[in-house]
Amino acid sequence: MELARIEELIATHRDGLLKDTVPFWLRHGLDGECGGLLNYLAADGSVLHTDKAVWVQSRFAWLTALLYSEVEQRGEWLDASRSCIEFLERHCFDTDGRMFFEVTRDGRPLRKRRYLFTETFGAIAFSEYARATGDRQRLERAKDLYRLIICYYQNPGLLPPKVFPQTRQMKSHAMPMILLATTQQLRRNGDDPLYERTIQDSLTQVFEHFMRPDLEALLENVGPNGEMLEGPEGRVITPGHAIETSWFIMEEGRHRGDRGLIEKACTILDWSLKWGWDRQFGGILYYVDVEGKPPEQYEHDMKLWWPHTEALYATLLAHHLTGEKRYEEWYERIHEWSYERFPDREHGEWFKYLHRDGTLSSTAKGTRWAGPFHLPRMQLYCWKLLEEMKQSAG
Amino acid sequence: MELARIEELIATHRDGLLKDTVPFWLRHGLDGECGGLLNYLAADGSVLHTDKAVWVQSRFAWLTALLYSEVEQRGEWLDASRSCIEFLERHCFDTDGRMFFEVTRDGRPLRKRRYLFTETFGAIAFSEYARATGDRQRLERAKDLYRLIICYYQNPGLLPPKVFPQTRQMKSHAMPMILLATTQQLRRNGDDPLYERTIQDSLTQVFEHFMRPDLEALLENVGPNGEMLEGPEGRVITPGHAIETSWFIMEEGRHRGDRGLIEKACTILDWSLKWGWDRQFGGILYYVDVEGKPPEQYEHDMKLWWPHTEALYATLLAHHLTGEKRYEEWYERIHEWSYERFPDREHGEWFKYLHRDGTLSSTAKGTRWAGPFHLPRMQLYCWKLLEEMKQSAG
Repeated sequence: MELARIEELIATHRDGLLKDTVPFWLRHGLDGECGGLLNYLAADGSVLHTDKAVWVQSRFAWLTALLYSEVEQRGEWLDASRSCIEFLERHCFDTDGRMFFEVTRDGRPLRKRRYLFTETFGAIAFSEYARATGDRQRLERAKDLYRLIICYYQNPGLLPPKVFPQTRQMKSHAMPMILLATTQQLRRNGDDPLYERTIQDSLTQVFEHFMRPDLEALLENVGPNGEMLEGPEGRVITPGHAIETSWFIMEEGRHRGDRGLIEKACTILDWSLKWGWDRQFGGILYYVDVEGKPPEQYEHDMKLWWPHTEALYATLLAHHLTGEKRYEEWYERIHEWSYERFPDREHGEWFKYLHRDGTLSSTAKGTRWAGPFHLPRMQLYCWKLLEEMKQSAG
Repeated sequence: MELARIEELIATHRDGLLKDTVPFWLRHGLDGECGGLLNYLAADGSVLHTDKAVWVQSRFAWLTALLYSEVEQRGEWLDASRSCIEFLERHCFDTDGRMFFEVTRDGRPLRKRRYLFTETFGAIAFSEYARATGDRQRLERAKDLYRLIICYYQNPGLLPPKVFPQTRQMKSHAMPMILLATTQQLRRNGDDPLYERTIQDSLTQVFEHFMRPDLEALLENVGPNGEMLEGPEGRVITPGHAIETSWFIMEEGRHRGDRGLIEKACTILDWSLKWGWDRQFGGILYYVDVEGKPPEQYEHDMKLWWPHTEALYATLLAHHLTGEKRYEEWYERIHEWSYERFPDREHGEWFKYLHRDGTLSSTAKGTRWAGPFHLPRMQLYCWKLLEEMKQSAG
């Protein structure tokens, strides 16, 4: 990549992060009254709903603590992180040690889900807050949560199953993917044999059970030993997920200095871009059927913000690690498509949901699922990576 | 409505039902091997998935038994109904008397849900099959199921709640709506004081808790005494549901000879068409926010087949019962929009999912949710109503 372009992109991502995304959420989201973050926001930042998604509390605690450690020790960032952490501690844990999924503005529990994702985001929140502050109690809390997740993961009978397991056993790519990412985060506070084992298990699962060289696809759901399942659940690819996994694995390769791991990750990225890129309208499809049959999700052909932010970082990282021109071209293609459509030129931040043809489906800036995570993480990670690239280029 | 138009529409609906919709499902869906109906079908009728949705088994048992009673005593219809009824009996009941939501092709249980909708469709299936055959055991089974539904409905603590009830109580318009429709069906086999009470309670709920004259809207979710709830769940209107309710209530008015009831039903219809009709692209939106804010569902602005079929029958019935010209105009507007976009000219039947702009989102003919119910019910009911209208006009 040309030095001038690198410098231009550094400005785009750094300023997008520090002058747009983070201020938008600090200004409109932070709840001065009850603590934590109001996450259901309209285009102009006004509140659409005061219920609080616990994922989002944790993800914002993580982001602001990370900014404090990696960018600058700004008090407002640490205050925001602490507000979310304290809200989580006060209101978001059930008596079984698991976390609620959604609570009221003042922290009364509304929903709890069978999935463990809430706990994984809780673990990275406490871990990153501990790293920013040196708070050993919060670090222990992160590790407790992590061990709880592993315990449930290893003993699936502890959770009520979605599908009767005596009839059909299936597993989702989302679990090894999120365990890999969660473990990588916790490892920043010091390694542990459990981390190594979990990462190795996740990589084995992805490579041996979810990656299908015969289909050139990473499947979202398979049987317990990687068997292809019949029907739309068995045939579905989630390109955004697979692309996210690819850069988690590239980071693992970088961490270990393992070229083979980076190559495998790039294979996943190549496959997923091929499946996900919409040749008719551009952008990345949400779900694709590996046999070209109609996926069952209503939203299958919508263009959501997060597969695009994940693809931006994945392609930039792949370009940096391999030097391959085609990843730079992919980066630029996705950048152009995304920056033409997602940013809100009037109120800042990005819109989250577009129709297949790129027109706006919803004006919301935040929902139960969409909070300050994928966009600012991409902006921070791309910025920092571009700084590395500038060093090498300069 | 002009007599010539009535005759033209009779042909459209009768032939659509008897020469297209029903044969499509008998040919492609009936499972000669395991019994019941394969309901995940591609555009050309090929099977996308062999898992069986229990809603669809019941609805097809109901439809084919109804055709046998109301149209013609065709053996293939009664055979289809019996095949679904026997499949339900053999495979779709849990030991607690409740029904599974989804089973494998050969009837092993996959999913069970907290909602009671599966049981309501089970009740109308057994009831209608009993009416077609005079089978008293199946009639008792229908009544048992009905009483089980009422028992769960009156004692909500029997089911695991979706939202912690100590934090927030809410109720959905779907329950009184489906209880009204289910009871009307069971009543065809003879009245019962429990039926009268249930219908009266459902009407009271709809009129006093879900209808909001100040907003000119029927809300989908409210508090236990009709309180407006904060947030997207509290603000959402589901025009298709509200329109469906309106014709259930019109039928009740017709049954009782109660003009006041018909007028109230027409008010719901008027409001819901006003909220639901998309002035930009035409067609009926799936979800609308009563304050014009973004609904949270991805599919909020999609055009699904079923709100359109419900609106066709509701407007035709309203026109017949009130003589109002505007309902005829609405009928024709919805008819034109729908018949230009939903029917598959190549393989027959209707597509189910369109984007907001009317282009095709999915080519599937059947999914977990979309089976032979809303379309053939509309075709049958419109045909029969048009015959009545022809009598009056002639």
